[in-house]
Amino acid sequence: MEEIKPYYHKVQYYETDTMTVVHHSNYIRWFEEARLDYLEQIHFPYPEIEERNLMIPVLGVSCEYRQAVRFGEMVLIETEIIKFNGIKFTVSYKIYNENHQVLHAQGNTEHCFLDKEFHPVSIKKKAPDLYEFFANKTLHNR
Amino acid sequence: MEEIKPYYHKVQYYETDTMTVVHHSNYIRWFEEARLDYLEQIHFPYPEIEERNLMIPVLGVSCEYRQAVRFGEMVLIETEIIKFNGIKFTVSYKIYNENHQVLHAQGNTEHCFLDKEFHPVSIKKKAPDLYEFFANKTLHNR
Amino acid sequence: MEEIKPYYHKVQYYETDTMTVVHHSNYIRWFEEARLDYLEQIHFPYPEIEERNLMIPVLGVSCEYRQAVRFGEMVLIETEIIKFNGIKFTVSYKIYNENHQVLHAQGNTEHCFLDKEFHPVSIKKKAPDLYEFFANKTLHNR
Amino acid sequence: MEEIKPYYHKVQYYETDTMTVVHHSNYIRWFEEARLDYLEQIHFPYPEIEERNLMIPVLGVSCEYRQAVRFGEMVLIETEIIKFNGIKFTVSYKIYNENHQVLHAQGNTEHCFLDKEFHPVSIKKKAPDLYEFFANKTLHNR
Repeated sequence: MEEIKPYYHKVQYYETDTMTVVHHSNYIRWFEEARLDYLEQIHFPYPEIEERNLMIPVLGVSCEYRQAVRFGEMVLIETEIIKFNGIKFTVSYKIYNENHQVLHAQGNTEHCFLDKEFHPVSIKKKAPDLYEFFANKTLHNR
Repeated sequence: MEEIKPYYHKVQYYETDTMTVVHHSNYIRWFEEARLDYLEQIHFPYPEIEERNLMIPVLGVSCEYRQAVRFGEMVLIETEIIKFNGIKFTVSYKIYNENHQVLHAQGNTEHCFLDKEFHPVSIKKKAPDLYEFFANKTLHNR
Repeated sequence: MEEIKPYYHKVQYYETDTMTVVHHSNYIRWFEEARLDYLEQIHFPYPEIEERNLMIPVLGVSCEYRQAVRFGEMVLIETEIIKFNGIKFTVSYKIYNENHQVLHAQGNTEHCFLDKEFHPVSIKKKAPDLYEFFANKTLHNR
Repeated sequence: MEEIKPYYHKVQYYETDTMTVVHHSNYIRWFEEARLDYLEQIHFPYPEIEERNLMIPVLGVSCEYRQAVRFGEMVLIETEIIKFNGIKFTVSYKIYNENHQVLHAQGNTEHCFLDKEFHPVSIKKKAPDLYEFFANKTLHNR
């Protein structure tokens, strides 16, 4: 299995607020950026997932903020699928500074699979390749 | 014809940036808020427009920023349809402070009508009631 | 003690995404809207808190999404301070549809008090009125 | 003078809306991304400009939308300073698809220089190096 590369995000001015640091809601958006980059790296780019009539909504999110990020900085995000039970999966994120020495924030998102009519989907049937990947990835966690 | 009420928007913290004022991109979003409120006031709420298989995309936008807006302030937006040629229309916005004494910004957006497949639509045929309204509204401007 | 009124938010078009529902990151922004409205209702509007050289950053956030919200809907948010230990406090949010029958999402945010140089502040000393309110509010929870 | 490289932006899911294309307000944010990348390329990164007690607010913005951009696409932005009179300057942007064959949008932003107290600044005095660059850059346009 190929190694997953961390995701880099350059902090934008419009992501800051009056406290002169990045607004906390944007970390949730960075989680999404990192997650979609992850899916691309494992050869399941999200636009193709959508073409297969699948959606991967967010069921839950949590984030712990440890040190503020400022405009002009580059952050490095490590993404990992930490749970999968065939129906739902959990992704974990760690947001570091560029040289990987400061942990700015960490969090999780939980997801399921739906079709475009918002009905739950068994990916074991509908997307066995994706099922296979997730199952292998989290084998040691079950 | 009923009079259009101005639209009020309370400035949110997440709309500010490191300059401690509202980020300029949010005025474009406020234009949208005011425009959709306007459509609701004239009894063409946008969700119903979408149900009629119509979309009203933005073809162009311009905004002139005169005085920064800060968190905690309330702004008042005056919205007007200033041009309509049967195909395209132009909406004008003036963003004031709450008591209408400071003009913070002003701008325009230009629009057309599409169906959900992104094809141009003649609303004279497809939505004659909407056509009628727009035509009457801008009679003096043609 | 006066009763806290729920906070209402009208869903904006720019808050939706390709799934045709509100993007999950915006719920985190709605939590902020509701929290700042709450502070205003208890007579500690955030701009005044900032004038007292205080900031209330977010240390953590969690949200559980139960049912998607669409453009054009109005949501009602119930906000409550559920924990306070003199240093940190936790706010809980429930996002309902307008008539309070569907629970769309619920979550928490955790906060502390900093001065504008990002140093921790004891509000018992610096803002005893605020301390008093929070302590009374959460008396039954300690 | 070194050549300016175009700026690349990967379209994010949270930038789309119910029309399944990028929300028009995000192009204004991409202009900012491209402008700040431009300043970095000419060796005036914005964080350093802020350290010199300068701010470059937006006085005006305009954008013409020609063809919608979808999630998953990469856009290429060409940025140019097209006017400078010592006090104000205008930046022009062209947003293409990745292979430079489709012009998705084009627009301008107008700017001035302020100090952190929001007072106008003559950069000829306060930042002669920046003045020099802008003056040379737009020599042929005056």
